[in-house]
Amino acid sequence: MGIILYDLAGEDPSLRFSPYCWRTRLALAHKGLEVETIPWRFTEKDVIAPSMQGRVPVIVDGGRWISDSWAIATYLELTYPDNPTLFSGMAGLALSRLYSAHADILVGTIFPFIALDIFANLHEKDSQYFRSSREARVGKPLEAFVAGRQDRLAPFRESLAPFRLVLKTQPFFGGEQPLYADYALFGPFQWARCTSSFALLEGTDPMHAWFERMLDLFDGLGRNAPAYNRA
Amino acid sequence: MGIILYDLAGEDPSLRFSPYCWRTRLALAHKGLEVETIPWRFTEKDVIAPSMQGRVPVIVDGGRWISDSWAIATYLELTYPDNPTLFSGMAGLALSRLYSAHADILVGTIFPFIALDIFANLHEKDSQYFRSSREARVGKPLEAFVAGRQDRLAPFRESLAPFRLVLKTQPFFGGEQPLYADYALFGPFQWARCTSSFALLEGTDPMHAWFERMLDLFDGLGRNAPAYNRA
Repeated sequence: MGIILYDLAGEDPSLRFSPYCWRTRLALAHKGLEVETIPWRFTEKDVIAPSMQGRVPVIVDGGRWISDSWAIATYLELTYPDNPTLFSGMAGLALSRLYSAHADILVGTIFPFIALDIFANLHEKDSQYFRSSREARVGKPLEAFVAGRQDRLAPFRESLAPFRLVLKTQPFFGGEQPLYADYALFGPFQWARCTSSFALLEGTDPMHAWFERMLDLFDGLGRNAPAYNRA
Repeated sequence: MGIILYDLAGEDPSLRFSPYCWRTRLALAHKGLEVETIPWRFTEKDVIAPSMQGRVPVIVDGGRWISDSWAIATYLELTYPDNPTLFSGMAGLALSRLYSAHADILVGTIFPFIALDIFANLHEKDSQYFRSSREARVGKPLEAFVAGRQDRLAPFRESLAPFRLVLKTQPFFGGEQPLYADYALFGPFQWARCTSSFALLEGTDPMHAWFERMLDLFDGLGRNAPAYNRA
């Protein structure tokens, strides 16, 4: 039996948009592991109760429950050492943490651009939970939180300067081929792509070109994923 | 014969303050290589002319001239493969680029805090060159450029959030021991420490604790370096 992944879904169960679950999707694909994804909503805490916490990604592998995208990645690396490496040794693992940390911060930086778009894609059972929990966190209505997002775009893009410097000399953050560092960073941008039409990156940005390469990996796993209704 | 390093110096030839030269100093120490440092000033372009460019660090190793801190680090790794590794393989090297890129950006971010302090430490032969070249770059007098620096401290510290997340779980960016990633990031903070009394980091900041660990490496190579006159 393959690995099971509880994967955050929208009203449309095929819409999978969690920045953290996307890391895990690509990490599993990199390892060449079979996975069955199960659509999960924010309010279905009981379904993942055996993981002893309430957030996805959660995987179940041969009866073992593992949560947290970083913990899942290191679990996969240790449990399947003969499959392609996600980190390239202990030093690579240590050096990869900054990418994961950056991606965590990016989730917070990108949220004020797409919060309402996420809300519009949720299953109705999640809507009230999402609005009230997120509004408590940011201290204002989601509408006010997102207002003026166009004006915040320039400093956001400016904050990506270090990544652009790296991409001047190599196609992926892992070098010639992607590593977990790439999957960690892919998550927040795929989260935005799957839920919103708002263009975070300019078409001429090297980060945009990198993201396009990431979308093509594993037979277009990211590119072919259902996104919000673009009608 | 050991390696020669042309090392940016102030009026006091023992004051060595280049953020890029500091990377190289620690990389050489990590590799356990003997080095003779030669004080160099901005205007002594002729001295390093064999390197085919005008900036330090420049090293000379057995007649070979190598410039650019990243190129020097990769040269050392390839030339002295049996000495302790700076990168831990090709993946580690690829993953380390973001640290170097971040440090390059940090030089630009820190400069508006310490530009006048650097100026005050220069050899008189460099003063006019430094002021005119930097004022042309930033588009205003250094005094105006630095004004209000206290107000810019909070966003600067906020920008270090990803680094702090990493240091929650490991003492160095390279893991249990420092790697080139650490030396790259050390440079800009040591540059500030050697030239300025301005406190970029709070004493309670995990980045401050990391910097203190870095200062202790190699028998206090960074800590014992002469700094500006603190009288």
